[in-house]
Amino acid sequence: RCLLPLFLGLFQGALLLFFALFVTYDGPSAQVEDANLVANQVYSTFPFFQDIQVMLVVGLGLLLTFLPRYGLSALTHNFLLLNFSMQWALVLQGLIHHFQHGQVHLDLHKLLVSEFAAVTVLISVGAILGRTSPCQLLVMAACEVPVYLASEWVIVNCLGVLDVGGTITIHVFSCYFGLGVSKALFWARQKPLHPKETPTPRSDLMSLVGMLILWVFWPSFVAVLCQPGDAQHRAILNTLLAMSASAITTVVASSLLERDGKLSPGHLQNGSLAGGVAIGAVADMAMPPAAALALGSLSAVACVLGFRCLTPLLGRKLRLQDQCGIHNLHGLPGILGAAASAVATLVASKEASGSRFSQQALCQAAGLAVAIGASLVAGLLAGAALRLPCLAQPPERLCFDDSLHFKFQAQVE
Amino acid sequence: RCLLPLFLGLFQGALLLFFALFVTYDGPSAQVEDANLVANQVYSTFPFFQDIQVMLVVGLGLLLTFLPRYGLSALTHNFLLLNFSMQWALVLQGLIHHFQHGQVHLDLHKLLVSEFAAVTVLISVGAILGRTSPCQLLVMAACEVPVYLASEWVIVNCLGVLDVGGTITIHVFSCYFGLGVSKALFWARQKPLHPKETPTPRSDLMSLVGMLILWVFWPSFVAVLCQPGDAQHRAILNTLLAMSASAITTVVASSLLERDGKLSPGHLQNGSLAGGVAIGAVADMAMPPAAALALGSLSAVACVLGFRCLTPLLGRKLRLQDQCGIHNLHGLPGILGAAASAVATLVASKEASGSRFSQQALCQAAGLAVAIGASLVAGLLAGAALRLPCLAQPPERLCFDDSLHFKFQAQVE
Amino acid sequence: RCLLPLFLGLFQGALLLFFALFVTYDGPSAQVEDANLVANQVYSTFPFFQDIQVMLVVGLGLLLTFLPRYGLSALTHNFLLLNFSMQWALVLQGLIHHFQHGQVHLDLHKLLVSEFAAVTVLISVGAILGRTSPCQLLVMAACEVPVYLASEWVIVNCLGVLDVGGTITIHVFSCYFGLGVSKALFWARQKPLHPKETPTPRSDLMSLVGMLILWVFWPSFVAVLCQPGDAQHRAILNTLLAMSASAITTVVASSLLERDGKLSPGHLQNGSLAGGVAIGAVADMAMPPAAALALGSLSAVACVLGFRCLTPLLGRKLRLQDQCGIHNLHGLPGILGAAASAVATLVASKEASGSRFSQQALCQAAGLAVAIGASLVAGLLAGAALRLPCLAQPPERLCFDDSLHFKFQAQVE
Repeated sequence: RCLLPLFLGLFQGALLLFFALFVTYDGPSAQVEDANLVANQVYSTFPFFQDIQVMLVVGLGLLLTFLPRYGLSALTHNFLLLNFSMQWALVLQGLIHHFQHGQVHLDLHKLLVSEFAAVTVLISVGAILGRTSPCQLLVMAACEVPVYLASEWVIVNCLGVLDVGGTITIHVFSCYFGLGVSKALFWARQKPLHPKETPTPRSDLMSLVGMLILWVFWPSFVAVLCQPGDAQHRAILNTLLAMSASAITTVVASSLLERDGKLSPGHLQNGSLAGGVAIGAVADMAMPPAAALALGSLSAVACVLGFRCLTPLLGRKLRLQDQCGIHNLHGLPGILGAAASAVATLVASKEASGSRFSQQALCQAAGLAVAIGASLVAGLLAGAALRLPCLAQPPERLCFDDSLHFKFQAQVE
Repeated sequence: RCLLPLFLGLFQGALLLFFALFVTYDGPSAQVEDANLVANQVYSTFPFFQDIQVMLVVGLGLLLTFLPRYGLSALTHNFLLLNFSMQWALVLQGLIHHFQHGQVHLDLHKLLVSEFAAVTVLISVGAILGRTSPCQLLVMAACEVPVYLASEWVIVNCLGVLDVGGTITIHVFSCYFGLGVSKALFWARQKPLHPKETPTPRSDLMSLVGMLILWVFWPSFVAVLCQPGDAQHRAILNTLLAMSASAITTVVASSLLERDGKLSPGHLQNGSLAGGVAIGAVADMAMPPAAALALGSLSAVACVLGFRCLTPLLGRKLRLQDQCGIHNLHGLPGILGAAASAVATLVASKEASGSRFSQQALCQAAGLAVAIGASLVAGLLAGAALRLPCLAQPPERLCFDDSLHFKFQAQVE
Repeated sequence: RCLLPLFLGLFQGALLLFFALFVTYDGPSAQVEDANLVANQVYSTFPFFQDIQVMLVVGLGLLLTFLPRYGLSALTHNFLLLNFSMQWALVLQGLIHHFQHGQVHLDLHKLLVSEFAAVTVLISVGAILGRTSPCQLLVMAACEVPVYLASEWVIVNCLGVLDVGGTITIHVFSCYFGLGVSKALFWARQKPLHPKETPTPRSDLMSLVGMLILWVFWPSFVAVLCQPGDAQHRAILNTLLAMSASAITTVVASSLLERDGKLSPGHLQNGSLAGGVAIGAVADMAMPPAAALALGSLSAVACVLGFRCLTPLLGRKLRLQDQCGIHNLHGLPGILGAAASAVATLVASKEASGSRFSQQALCQAAGLAVAIGASLVAGLLAGAALRLPCLAQPPERLCFDDSLHFKFQAQVE
């Protein structure tokens, strides 16, 4: 039980040492133009950065509070993992940069890229939420961040995949990493439904608020790394259209699939975001707005169908646990988005050169394959590591309960 | 019961077709200056746009969760109607633009104007919240958006009314539309108090959080369409002053009116926002800051008095249902704001030309009359349409309950 | 009981009179360059201003809802005091400005400075939350704002203390003011634990959400008044680093101090913010990023240790009530931050001139002494004034209960 403070404490010490040795800020701008440039960069990046922080810390945290007695743990683990993974990604990136160029100059852009690495961890956790100890989650994060950085480097820099919103590099990668971990960690045991696993109307309400916060700020997530100007404008509009189509299509799909035409809160909490996942790979491409609407609708349908049909099937056939349904929210829409990006580049190359063959479309497909392959293998290995007894996996009967991780004051009469 | 997915599915199909045929993005900017211009427009509009999205999706949604067992439905219907109405307004505006100028070029400004059309629907719903089916709400939205667009065009373009924050065009219009719908829908039946209609301290808390979110971001709503520079600066300051005065005056008025000097949560949830409603029509005018304070205080008094005296009176005499008290939050302060705008233009014309007569003041009054007249007539007609049996109005005993619209998982022992 | 509306009503009247007599807006910009300048100032300040409003109204409000039956009161009193103190600070600053330069020209920057004055009140209230009437809180605010303005003027303008994020002027000042008030108000009586004083998991969850909102937007609070460009960029980065280190160190410290390695929700709600408090005085200085990390970690340790050891000790020895633990969140990290600023200026002067002596370091220490001294004396006096019987301090058995301040509708069967 004292492994957690030991591990985190050592990590904070190492981080401090690394920063003291290798990291500085830029020196002061020599000229007025440079100072203005820095000021403009802050004004153009910082609002997007804050939006993304709200998404991850508040929105995603609340989305995970659908487990009625596990809200404090979900929020806290999400918050802890965000900070740990961001710092860990800063260290890893800094080390690589240091060996290539010497001293690391910290800026908002580097923090943003590290935050993106942290997002993959926060998504993957969804597969094993509630049945794991914080130690296990930290070890998982420690494994996932370097694999993500490597796979992102291969996909974007080597293969030249276009993926401004992280559909392939973040969503698909983190989904299959999480599923791999879940498979290796829980392996053959099929878990019966836990009494504390079922959402209540109140916990569903909190989770819905989290979804709405994510929905509102998603365009900032997709557009932050775009080229300012036309491309960024288009990325924002495409994301807004895709997410609006997702929201309505989710209601259609959910009320068609549930008996009596009622809605399932779980479908709404996830389906409305599916368009945002899928649009990431194509958001800044020159494609008609109708394509963004169609992609948003399709991915919402895929997400809802996934919850209704695929998750139970995977549970029965593969004995795969997926607590939050990350395969439905990040896996299926991510694959759809990757396919859409291949089609979009195919169409663009045909329009440009009349050729039916497109190098870029192949790259997009290769990128998807690398993301799925690397994440599955790494996830299975990481999941096996999480079975180490010293990581204190909680026994089944104590799962999904805040009192496992928190000390509450006794109520006075 | 399957009318809802049918209606929404057909609408999504039609939307997709319309976008595929008529809507494109601007081509890439030819010159560096143009690209910089686009980038600057994004940076100056997008933060305001996001603030407004937070207001509507999270703030207004939470404000409506004061019904203790209807929170999920209130949030979901609000979210669904926002998306549907925005898309519907995009289609209508696109059609008009198409027949006049050909191809529609989508940009953030067009989305913003459509969002404003959606706001009217979200406000009007407040009059009939809890006793209606989603189908009825969608039909209401389908009726309200075109009438709003027409009335807004008459008021702003034909009459030349000054109303930068939508006091007349949005708040007054949507209030009387909603009251018209409520009157025609529930007609002669005076409803007894429903057991699930009374807020609990917990649902009041969530609603109060929603109010606070609306309160914080309201200046963005008022100032987004202002001329950048002095006018926008003044609009922000006037809105901040008016809302601050509203907040304090609401406490004064509520504790004077309630026995024992206690506060009513309902008064706070509404009165604190009344200043924001009223200031919209005059926010960017050249008037002294004291006028903004006075208008904020006055509208808060009107709102609280409305809850205390007018709502019970209208219920008894006119048998008018107004579930959220939209007449107190949007109607009375809206009329006050319109009157203030007439006075402000009168004073300005007297200072400018010495004349006691002002064309503009007459226009403001005429705009108010058009907004009230058009919305009442259209609302009554729309409300009559909502009585169609196929729209599945819920029976009284099932009202105000999430389980009417949502399928919850059974709790396991 | 009718003192509250009387007091607030008179204040609103006086405010209106003051604004009508002395306050105007700037005239319209004469030239295009001036108009562009105003527009750019709005775009560069307004997003920060909105972030700070969200922090104070929503974030801090929710943080205070850890008292399970006092949520509505905590949110409402926080909101009321923010508005009252901001208006009161506007009046006081306006009066001073008026006697020096004549007419007061209102702008966003003046509102921001007034908002900072209001922050001190909102922090101080934490010491006496739940056992006080709104009248008492308003009288406290009326006393605190002028003392803050005077002490801030002495510290920043006379002593030339560097404190861009308000560590000394805001956090340390408000902490000792609040403790002074608490000591003088409750004096010798040591209060037994009240049955409604203990948080529940649900109220802890709401409070945690409030902390997360504060955590996300804290960089805006620290950086808003910085010089645009390098200094502001550095302030944002330093704050992000310090708060990230705080978040992780809090988990380490809390799980080491609690039995079984569990976490205390109260530690998390406060410790994660300690880094933001401490970093304010040094955020824009030229210091290595590692120093920000170290300061964040140290202040989190100080905060958690404060809760564990110092608060019980102060309660026993000095009979000091500190309901929210403001001494741990604002006092200890504030003193740490002030010490860090003295060290940073010492190092900088040594690097610049080789001298071991630094005028500036002495100033920082003097500023800290002034802040503590002035606030303690003024707080004790204000606390004595709060004992006036007409201010209606609630009896102990009615404390910590919303029904003391709110009138709820009776539930219908």
